[in-house]
Amino acid sequence: MRIVLAAGSTETARIEGLSAAGANPEAMAHTPGADAEIVAYGDVVRAPSVPVAPTGTPTPALVTRAAREVLGLDAIVVDAGLAEPTGAPTVTVGARAGADIRESDPVPTAPGAFHAARDLGRSLPDDHLVLAETIPGGTTTALGVLRALGEDAVVSSSLPSNPIERKREVVAEGLEASGLEPGDCESDPREAVRRMGDPVLATLAGVATGALAAGKRVTLAGGTQQLAVAALCRHDGATGPMDVATTSYVAGDEGVAFRETARAFDCEPTVTDPEFDRAHAGFGGYVDGEAKEGVGMGGALALAAETGDLAAVRERAGELYDRLVATEDR
Amino acid sequence: MRIVLAAGSTETARIEGLSAAGANPEAMAHTPGADAEIVAYGDVVRAPSVPVAPTGTPTPALVTRAAREVLGLDAIVVDAGLAEPTGAPTVTVGARAGADIRESDPVPTAPGAFHAARDLGRSLPDDHLVLAETIPGGTTTALGVLRALGEDAVVSSSLPSNPIERKREVVAEGLEASGLEPGDCESDPREAVRRMGDPVLATLAGVATGALAAGKRVTLAGGTQQLAVAALCRHDGATGPMDVATTSYVAGDEGVAFRETARAFDCEPTVTDPEFDRAHAGFGGYVDGEAKEGVGMGGALALAAETGDLAAVRERAGELYDRLVATEDR
Repeated sequence: MRIVLAAGSTETARIEGLSAAGANPEAMAHTPGADAEIVAYGDVVRAPSVPVAPTGTPTPALVTRAAREVLGLDAIVVDAGLAEPTGAPTVTVGARAGADIRESDPVPTAPGAFHAARDLGRSLPDDHLVLAETIPGGTTTALGVLRALGEDAVVSSSLPSNPIERKREVVAEGLEASGLEPGDCESDPREAVRRMGDPVLATLAGVATGALAAGKRVTLAGGTQQLAVAALCRHDGATGPMDVATTSYVAGDEGVAFRETARAFDCEPTVTDPEFDRAHAGFGGYVDGEAKEGVGMGGALALAAETGDLAAVRERAGELYDRLVATEDR
Repeated sequence: MRIVLAAGSTETARIEGLSAAGANPEAMAHTPGADAEIVAYGDVVRAPSVPVAPTGTPTPALVTRAAREVLGLDAIVVDAGLAEPTGAPTVTVGARAGADIRESDPVPTAPGAFHAARDLGRSLPDDHLVLAETIPGGTTTALGVLRALGEDAVVSSSLPSNPIERKREVVAEGLEASGLEPGDCESDPREAVRRMGDPVLATLAGVATGALAAGKRVTLAGGTQQLAVAALCRHDGATGPMDVATTSYVAGDEGVAFRETARAFDCEPTVTDPEFDRAHAGFGGYVDGEAKEGVGMGGALALAAETGDLAAVRERAGELYDRLVATEDR
């Protein structure tokens, strides 16, 4: 079993009010590389700081790293279009950072990345891949891909109050700029992610379809972005069992219908309650609906729940918070 | 503790008769990427095959991987100028594959890679770094660097009979092409590696000096290439304790004077006998003086000897050989 974290960027994240994956727009550009370093090393190396929401809520990368340490999980990072250099080791699939989906061709590297990632997913020696993502603004591009595919699913948000109307506006503008009606890419998922998505969705869909073709088990670890990955895989003709593992914060998000949407894409949903009300106070923002998911946290927690290590992972995440986040305030 | 494997290429390796790090020149181009994949995953992923010498002797990467598995060692790969894509995750330091040292400026990326690698060595969260290399033709470029620095040390070979005279000719041609006399780069090691070395030496010297500056312990794992790294560090003004860990095959190489040279660069030598005469017959070539070292094998074996796991590592390496090499003959 191996976690495959796709880390990338999209200028769609610069649209105001869409994402809480960073203290401010400047910091947000470093979030995917920082998350990758935290998962790889348990600390930032080249990134300037540990990502936090504007309110101080820390990145879910701390939880995924904690699970790696407690459970001894292998992980690799794929460069799915990083805009800033990272100190984490990355596998290359030819992805470049995405532009704003309100442009006509924001992710020209998507089809190539999909293809190279598919080869990677097929070739990795593991029989079970747990796919994770880090890309600010990713739920908006996920909504864009779902619409281009003609799917009506609703996406979640890293903000407590989901700016879903704003996302719909952005997606409508993007479809118009690309000359697309909803559903126009129903049978061409690579075009859907090129015109309306981001390089992380392209990379994960590639890894997943390659792994499925080779008979591996695939867990999509995350929230509604992973439902967009599932949709891309199914529209690409991929069969085979997939499960999607998220947190109770996403599954409990009113209007998202996580479980039903997962099943509609023939994915078995797994929902884990992180019980952050019992955790370090630094994670209190999660209880209030911030962040909710990301960097494979839902999948990491599901693995911890399976082995009875949920409390140990929470505790380790709290220690990482004290060492990496609390000390930065001094 | 973490293994840091620098993987790169130099066209110097294309000079006939210098290296046994591949079955033929075509295969040799894939050796560093394949070694990186074996250390990262325990199998090749994008590389076409497991590297073997023309006689079939397998890459020492199998031994380093075996030690990782038995001892639970962390490892990262740095892209120190790979000519072919690898499926291993790599950290970027801006290195590009080197040209033939008989050209005037074969490694223009060396100073930049040295600098970026220095930052990496300083920033990595580990208190002990074990540096490893994979680059065909690397002992010739090591000799070139030693001469440019004005050091008289002799280098070893991956061939049972060291083509040292041929290496000296190549180095003499390289010095002439660069307009250098031996010792001209005595006080400018970055220029030495740019004009007469390869991107792996630049990267490892950078990581080592950065780590030493941050007070970390540094082990140079390998043979005479690592003595060139030690020389680069000392000529760069780096103080602090370093040890260099190699195999008895290198230390027993007549004419190399491994221990004495290590001490001359203020490095404590550690020599481990792999006892491959007790190992899987696939490793018999090592007993006859082939390969000798590489991919950090000497350091991996030293760590295994410290914990009493040498026999277990040998056994695991034999299993890897059966799974990865022997099956390719079928």
